Amino acid sequence: MDEDGRQTWVEHLSEDECWRRLASTPVGRIGIIYDSAPELYPVNYALDGRAIVIRVDPGRVLAGLTRSPAVCFEIDHIDADDESGWSVLVKGRARELVDGPELERAAALPLRGWSLGAKAHWVRIEPEEVTGRRIWHDAG
Amino acid sequence: MDEDGRQTWVEHLSEDECWRRLASTPVGRIGIIYDSAPELYPVNYALDGRAIVIRVDPGRVLAGLTRSPAVCFEIDHIDADDESGWSVLVKGRARELVDGPELERAAALPLRGWSLGAKAHWVRIEPEEVTGRRIWHDAG
Repeated sequence: MDEDGRQTWVEHLSEDECWRRLASTPVGRIGIIYDSAPELYPVNYALDGRAIVIRVDPGRVLAGLTRSPAVCFEIDHIDADDESGWSVLVKGRARELVDGPELERAAALPLRGWSLGAKAHWVRIEPEEVTGRRIWHDAG
Repeated sequence: MDEDGRQTWVEHLSEDECWRRLASTPVGRIGIIYDSAPELYPVNYALDGRAIVIRVDPGRVLAGLTRSPAVCFEIDHIDADDESGWSVLVKGRARELVDGPELERAAALPLRGWSLGAKAHWVRIEPEEVTGRRIWHDAG
């Protein structure tokens, strides 16, 4: 029971299930360190196998991950009416793609940007740890 | 025009507008540094004036912000059909509330937890910088 007398369930998602959810949504949030502080920004992304690929303009994300390649990437779905939701967190290392074959491969991904800017820098996040959880309730 | 020939708009939200949006949603994402890497987690929160209050269990968030008080807090809304959305990012400093009057004040906030756990630790994030943006499209 939670503090409202409901039955609350927390399910830890398997890594396969985390990747299925990562494959199902077009926007996630990258967490970087900039000036010794965390920052996080929504970004469009695509999967390349079990890596995450994003495109960025020169700016804080690119500057941050260049200096501190340890990044995280998160997706979630939150239902405020049900007070339920799930989230997936990928911790890994990011690097800008610079060589021709890697860039060609990235350019073939179904990665659409919603915002402005040339977003000429391609970044690949190699996962080191993938975790997820889901929370929901039954009436108490 | 963006790369699809649509007209794309990016609006920078005023600080007042950011706080209005922060007051309108029950879940945000806290970004912390743990072991020199960023991590981010969805959390229930409430506003106390222009500060953000969350409750946590002993764990990575509490351990991270105790060692590295520089944190960030983000909310967003993403519409995958319209490829539109908005986000607000608060950068600030977090500290656990420990003295009686502060804890009493925090306990009076409309802060409901959706998950399990006693969440006996109250944390206050004092903002230092609040920014937001909104992206949307017209047909090209």
